[in-house]
Amino acid sequence: MQVHESTTVATPAHLRVDGARLWDSLMQLAQIGATDKGGVCRLALTELDRQGRELFIAWAKEIGCTVRIDAIGNIFARRAGLHDDLPPVMTGSHIDTQPTGGKFDGNYGVLAGLEVLRTLAEANVQTLAPLEVAVWTNEEGSRFVPVMMGSGVFAGAFTLEHALAQRDREGVSVRDALTAIGYAGENGKPHTVGAYFEAHIEQGPVLEAHDKTIGVVQGALGQRWYDVTVQGMEAHAGPTPMELRRDALLVAADLIHAVNRIALDHAPHGRGTVGWLDVHPNSRNVIPGRVTLTVDLRAADDATLTAMDTALRAACSTAAEQAGIAVDVEQVVYFPPQPFAANLVAAVKQGADALGFSSMDVISGAGHDAVYLARVAPAAMIFVPCKDGISHNEIEDARADHLEAGCNVLLQAMLDAAWKLGSANA
Amino acid sequence: MQVHESTTVATPAHLRVDGARLWDSLMQLAQIGATDKGGVCRLALTELDRQGRELFIAWAKEIGCTVRIDAIGNIFARRAGLHDDLPPVMTGSHIDTQPTGGKFDGNYGVLAGLEVLRTLAEANVQTLAPLEVAVWTNEEGSRFVPVMMGSGVFAGAFTLEHALAQRDREGVSVRDALTAIGYAGENGKPHTVGAYFEAHIEQGPVLEAHDKTIGVVQGALGQRWYDVTVQGMEAHAGPTPMELRRDALLVAADLIHAVNRIALDHAPHGRGTVGWLDVHPNSRNVIPGRVTLTVDLRAADDATLTAMDTALRAACSTAAEQAGIAVDVEQVVYFPPQPFAANLVAAVKQGADALGFSSMDVISGAGHDAVYLARVAPAAMIFVPCKDGISHNEIEDARADHLEAGCNVLLQAMLDAAWKLGSANA
Repeated sequence: MQVHESTTVATPAHLRVDGARLWDSLMQLAQIGATDKGGVCRLALTELDRQGRELFIAWAKEIGCTVRIDAIGNIFARRAGLHDDLPPVMTGSHIDTQPTGGKFDGNYGVLAGLEVLRTLAEANVQTLAPLEVAVWTNEEGSRFVPVMMGSGVFAGAFTLEHALAQRDREGVSVRDALTAIGYAGENGKPHTVGAYFEAHIEQGPVLEAHDKTIGVVQGALGQRWYDVTVQGMEAHAGPTPMELRRDALLVAADLIHAVNRIALDHAPHGRGTVGWLDVHPNSRNVIPGRVTLTVDLRAADDATLTAMDTALRAACSTAAEQAGIAVDVEQVVYFPPQPFAANLVAAVKQGADALGFSSMDVISGAGHDAVYLARVAPAAMIFVPCKDGISHNEIEDARADHLEAGCNVLLQAMLDAAWKLGSANA
Repeated sequence: MQVHESTTVATPAHLRVDGARLWDSLMQLAQIGATDKGGVCRLALTELDRQGRELFIAWAKEIGCTVRIDAIGNIFARRAGLHDDLPPVMTGSHIDTQPTGGKFDGNYGVLAGLEVLRTLAEANVQTLAPLEVAVWTNEEGSRFVPVMMGSGVFAGAFTLEHALAQRDREGVSVRDALTAIGYAGENGKPHTVGAYFEAHIEQGPVLEAHDKTIGVVQGALGQRWYDVTVQGMEAHAGPTPMELRRDALLVAADLIHAVNRIALDHAPHGRGTVGWLDVHPNSRNVIPGRVTLTVDLRAADDATLTAMDTALRAACSTAAEQAGIAVDVEQVVYFPPQPFAANLVAAVKQGADALGFSSMDVISGAGHDAVYLARVAPAAMIFVPCKDGISHNEIEDARADHLEAGCNVLLQAMLDAAWKLGSANA
C-alpha cells in the first residue's frame, strides 16, 4: 500500500507504533503506586487511581482526544473519525491493579490503545470511524466486588445502582469513592460500540511454552465455581482404627483428584482447580471432621462445562457413598463461555501474519473487560507473552518487543475495523 | 473364697466396689469447672484444679490415706500395706481436663482408684503391699506442654527443671502456677512402684463396636509425627492449562491417600492421619503453590513403625518425582511403642473373666500416664467404653455399669498384684 499525504488513509499497513514510547509510558504510569519489589499497588478508586487516570487523560488530550467519563467512572478518550457519527472502534483495559500487582496487567491494554492513537496522530492519519480508548473502572475487584465492574455496568451484566452500592472493607461505597476522586461522571445509556479490541499480557504460560509472540484469542472459557462441604466425623487419630473412621480430608483428597481428572477428560480447554481448602478442626492428631473446599471448572463451550458439572456432582456422590460421609455441592458463580467475533479474531490473525509475527490460537482462561464487551459489541483480544506466565504478582514481567508487537497488531486490527465500519456505512 | 474378719486378706474375690458411690464422686468432681454443655473445663494448675485436688485429698484422708505431693505437683494418696516397706501397687490418672473436656477422661482413673481404696477400707481389708492412688499433674497439656508432664517427670522422660520452666500463653511458668495453688511439693527421687494400673475410658470406638465391657490393654502404639511441605508453582486457575501446572494441592492429595494406604497396609494396628493442612495462597482461582501438612503414623511395634516411615518417605519421593515438585518431610515427634507388662495384662484379663465381663484385647492408640509409668514399673491399663468413642469433648459420656465394671476389674487386679508382691517379698 502506498503512503499518502492525505489525512484519511484506509488501512495504512506501513504504520508502526513507537515501542520505546509505549514502554516509557508503561514505566511512567507504573511509578504511580510503585512497590519496592518492582510491582504496582494502585487499587480502584483510590488517590493513586486518580493520579493514574489524570496522567492518561493528560496524554490523551495532548494528541487531541476528547474525554468523557460515565457514571461508573469509565473513561473514554476519543479520536474523531471522518464519519464521526459511526460507532467507534474501541480498545482499552484497566489501570487498577491487585494489591501486589504488576506493571502490565491492564495498563498495557490502555497504553497500547493510547500508543495506537499517538501513532495515528503523529502520522496525521484520520480513520473513517472514530477510535476510542476506554479505561474501565475496577477490573480487578480487589477493593470492590464484583470484578470487571466498569465493563460489567457498560455491558449490562449488572446495574449501575448495584455497582455504586458496593462497599470496600472500610465501608466506603463505590459511589462515595467515585465522588471523592472526581470520577462520578455523566449518567446515560452506554453508547454503541462498533468493534472492541483488547490487548493484554497472557497471564498464563502457553505462548511462552510455544515460543509465540501473538496469541489470537478465540474467546473466553466459561466458568462454574462451587463451594463443597465434606462432613465426616471428628475423632482422635490415636484410638480410632482405620476401619472406624469417617475422615473428611480423605474424601476431600478424592475430590481434588476427581476435579483434576474431570479437567483432563475434557481436554484441551477443560480446567479444574481446587484453590481453597479449609480443614476442621485442623489439629495434628485429630481426624478431620469437616473439610470445605472450592472447585473452579472452566471450559470453552457450554456443553462441555455442563458435562464437567455433571461429572463433578457424580464424583461427589460416589465419594460420599463410598465413605458414608455427606458431601454438599453448591454452585456459586456461573460465567457462560464467550466466543469472540470471528471477523475481529480473523483481523488479529491477519495483522500478526502481515507483520510477520509468530502467532497461535489461544483461549482466555481468565475474565477480561473484553468478555463483557463481547455481550454488546463484536470483540476480540490480542495476547502477548508474559515472563513465566506470572501475573497478579509484583514480579510480573513482559518483553518490550512483545508489547510492541501486540500494539502493532492492535493498530492494524483497529485500522481494519475502522475502515470496514466506515466502508459499510459510507 | 471364704470371707474372713481378719484385717489381711490375700485376694478377696468376693469384694465389689460401690458403683453408685463411684458415679456420685465423678459427678461431684465434675461440678468443679462444670460447663453449660455438661462438660468440664479444669485446666492444669488453675484455681479449679486446686479445688479438684483438695476434694480428692479430703476424700482420701477420710479413709485414712496419707498424702504426699512431689515437686511437679503429683499427688500420691497412700493406703498402708501390712508390709509397708514394699513398693506400692499404684493406680491413678489425672484430673486436669481439656478446655472443652468431659467428666470421665482422667477423672475416672483417679476416682476408680479412690473407690478401690474405699471398698477395701469399708471391708477392713489390708493388703500385703501398700496401695497408692496417683493424681498426675497436667496430663492434657492444654495449658502447658509437654503433655503427660507429671508422669513424664516421674518416669524420667524429661527433667523436673524442664517441666517447671514451661510457660502458658500468658507467660506463667509451671513453677509459679504450682506455687500459686500450693502444690509445689517435696523434691526428691521418685519412689519405686511395684505395679501400676490405670483405668480409663477408651476414647475410641472399638469396645462399643464390638460390644465389649472391658478392654484389656496390651500396650500403646508408637508414634511418628511429621511436617511435610509440598512446593509447587502458584498460578492463575484460568489461564494455566492442566499440562503446564505444578499444583501443590494435587500432590498433597496423593500424600493423603498414601498415608491412608500405608496405615491399611500395616493392619490391624497401623494408623495414619493427616490432621492439619494449610494451602497457600488459598484463593479460589489460584492453583496452590505450596501446601504444608502433618502426618501422624502409629504402630504397635517399632519394626512396623519403621516400615511405615520408609513407605511414607517413598510415597513423598514418588509423588514429588511424578509431579516435578519438591516434597520435604521432617519428623518432629517420636514416641516408641510401649508394651505393657504381660503379668499385669494377664491379671486384668483374669479379673474381667472372673467377674464375668466380656472383654477383648485392645491397644491404646493415645498416650496416657501409664505409658510413661511403663518405663519405670510393670504397668497395664483397663479400658471401658465411652459413648460413640467421643472424648476431649463436653458431650463425652460413659455408662455407670461400665465404669463400675472397670473399677471392679481394677480392684481385683490391684489385690492380685499386692498379694503377689507381698508373697514374693514375704
